[in-house]
Amino acid sequence: MDILTPNDLASIKRSVDGGTEKQRETVKEILADVQSKQDEALYHYTNKLDGASLSELRVTEEEFQQARETMDAKDIDILKEAAENIRSFHEKQVRQSWFDTNEDGTVLGQKVTPLDAVGVYVPGGTAAYPSSVFMNVLPAVVAGVDRIVMVSPPSEEGILPAGVLVAAEIAGVKEVYKVGGAQAVAALAYGTESIQPVDKIVGPGNIYVALAKREVFGDVDIDMIAGPSEIVVFADDTAKPDEVAADLLSQAEHDERSSSVLVTTSETLAKAVAEEVDKQLEQLPRKDIAQASIRDFGAIVLCNSKAGAIDVVNSIAPEHLEIMMEEPLGVLGSIKHAGAIFLGRYSSEPVGDYFAGPNHVLPTSGTARFSSPLNVDDFVKKSSVIYYSKQAYEQNADKIARFARLEGLEAHAKAIEKRKDDES
Amino acid sequence: MDILTPNDLASIKRSVDGGTEKQRETVKEILADVQSKQDEALYHYTNKLDGASLSELRVTEEEFQQARETMDAKDIDILKEAAENIRSFHEKQVRQSWFDTNEDGTVLGQKVTPLDAVGVYVPGGTAAYPSSVFMNVLPAVVAGVDRIVMVSPPSEEGILPAGVLVAAEIAGVKEVYKVGGAQAVAALAYGTESIQPVDKIVGPGNIYVALAKREVFGDVDIDMIAGPSEIVVFADDTAKPDEVAADLLSQAEHDERSSSVLVTTSETLAKAVAEEVDKQLEQLPRKDIAQASIRDFGAIVLCNSKAGAIDVVNSIAPEHLEIMMEEPLGVLGSIKHAGAIFLGRYSSEPVGDYFAGPNHVLPTSGTARFSSPLNVDDFVKKSSVIYYSKQAYEQNADKIARFARLEGLEAHAKAIEKRKDDES
Repeated sequence: MDILTPNDLASIKRSVDGGTEKQRETVKEILADVQSKQDEALYHYTNKLDGASLSELRVTEEEFQQARETMDAKDIDILKEAAENIRSFHEKQVRQSWFDTNEDGTVLGQKVTPLDAVGVYVPGGTAAYPSSVFMNVLPAVVAGVDRIVMVSPPSEEGILPAGVLVAAEIAGVKEVYKVGGAQAVAALAYGTESIQPVDKIVGPGNIYVALAKREVFGDVDIDMIAGPSEIVVFADDTAKPDEVAADLLSQAEHDERSSSVLVTTSETLAKAVAEEVDKQLEQLPRKDIAQASIRDFGAIVLCNSKAGAIDVVNSIAPEHLEIMMEEPLGVLGSIKHAGAIFLGRYSSEPVGDYFAGPNHVLPTSGTARFSSPLNVDDFVKKSSVIYYSKQAYEQNADKIARFARLEGLEAHAKAIEKRKDDES
Repeated sequence: MDILTPNDLASIKRSVDGGTEKQRETVKEILADVQSKQDEALYHYTNKLDGASLSELRVTEEEFQQARETMDAKDIDILKEAAENIRSFHEKQVRQSWFDTNEDGTVLGQKVTPLDAVGVYVPGGTAAYPSSVFMNVLPAVVAGVDRIVMVSPPSEEGILPAGVLVAAEIAGVKEVYKVGGAQAVAALAYGTESIQPVDKIVGPGNIYVALAKREVFGDVDIDMIAGPSEIVVFADDTAKPDEVAADLLSQAEHDERSSSVLVTTSETLAKAVAEEVDKQLEQLPRKDIAQASIRDFGAIVLCNSKAGAIDVVNSIAPEHLEIMMEEPLGVLGSIKHAGAIFLGRYSSEPVGDYFAGPNHVLPTSGTARFSSPLNVDDFVKKSSVIYYSKQAYEQNADKIARFARLEGLEAHAKAIEKRKDDES
């Protein structure tokens, strides 16, 4: 790994895939097709793109049962414990409706209401991601969303991975469809004969899924579109080089475009980690991916001062930040931009990927400057509630009418004054 | 106004302006121009589109002073009182960082941090909207945003309306630029020599502003893109027809595409309101706008039952909902989708536009199904905080590593196990 200074910061690349013009055209075509031909289009694209010829889109009770029987009981227990941790952390985020009263009779507040229906996209491919099911579904469950629908592209044999189905069942999702890609997003946004539309679509997917979500945004809500995974390890010389290296590599194995960066003031640590990364790389089954990722998007930034290092961390605004320092808690207040912050030696990033409870759906590509981990707030909306008593009205009517006229809106003033005319 | 039944609901139109291909091209051109030519492009477009030839973009202290001197002192007092009400309501929304501890030494929480920098777009045109300044700026102020920048297109004389500048000053905004349109959005998103970039852009604008916001979304955050204003009045026969009519018209005067709908189970009220609307229309200075709006987007929906009427209201998911019924509070729990809910006779919608305190930036076009009024949460982001003690690590390491391997991610398992190897 290259050792850089903060001045080289601009050379730390992050990859954001905006898609090609051709991909955008394809997505628009699929969206239009699903809107006009509905289920027929879903079967067509599932056959064409996933190679699966289905007779029904919805996952049956038998398929759930088969999935349960396929899985090791010990794995199921771990999934259940993880789900419990995730549910418990998200339950602490739940907000109540509230109101505030004034002696003049005014009541003002916010009514918090869960969304009616949410769609969760679960990517297909070789690896089954039960953790992705939990992280996207459970905040919606905790928020009180009535209908949660899952979609995922089937294998050529027309089935979904056992881990995904078992996780869905543990999370309490009963409505699962074997459809993926832009066609699944279209079905969730606009509905078909089989799939009723939803109000919000969450969950990661390939570039076609991302482009489709961007396209339907506004008609329905979507979550942030995720880029490749990222980690910054902020460490001093109390950190162990082999542990730092292992954590950097755990991001690098995700994707050739993942970014793994060490920020430190310790030259000794910098050099030792660089060596360790090379050594540990050799032992990884996903070595090729991790190696490419480290080469193209990995870096070690050596800083002169702790303050300078903190600036580097904030300017990167990483998805994951590990603080492996003597007093990690003392640094927390200086971290302004990061999706998830892991404190101390035993809080390795994978702890948060699966098990601890906080969400692993996190802002990438520097969007931690303005966005948050997926959370319960993403599955509720607020309505303002306004009550003016007669007394509050009488005290303020003239001022409100005058304000309306200041903005040139006479009917607004009249609506206020109308109550005066008719007082009885 | 036409009297419809719930079956005619589909005929209640709402207008969403997605822009033309040509407008989208223009916006892309402007965005590219500002990114390459920066300030030069801002001066160029301000000259070309607003007809103002400026020597400086930033509003000076003298201009603020002139604005103050131009305005009636009584109007300034009303603005100040409104700002105080708005600030006070938003202060009640502020959330604290929180954490939760476990006896095994686990600490999990959410750190709440305000955004660094926010840009507020204030539309130009004939009417000055100080209320728009307050509603967009004050939630950011309350959230603790450090830098709040305002942009607004100048008149041909190169100045901004006094009301807008005075409101900016009351809200505490010092950094104001005389630039509007897509060029202002580009400057806020990407920065120029004069204008440092921001992390989020809020505030309404014309179609070019809306398209530009949609285009820069992802690089920076944006608020929801607003459609024309809407009201649903849900009333029984205790409501006064002239007051209902006045409230419908107060929305209709905003825009020819505004939507005003009465939902009721009372045929008597329906007929009386239809008459009153025609009568009151005659007295409005903005009659032409209101008339077109009522004709194209106004409706009275007569329902058989209260439950049916509630379904109609929820299926419209209106921006503004007035409940003018004998017991408005009893209906509140049944309302699932509405931006702002006004309860009872004295809570006319304009009360919330300017003065009461809740935000007037509200979800339109049915997006109240999944979005909220602009609020303090829109100007902060959360970071997850995760601390595992040695004990917590030891209790869970095997389970986490096994979960990682279940998902095929060996380096994740290794990062966890690495702590075990090196235990000392």
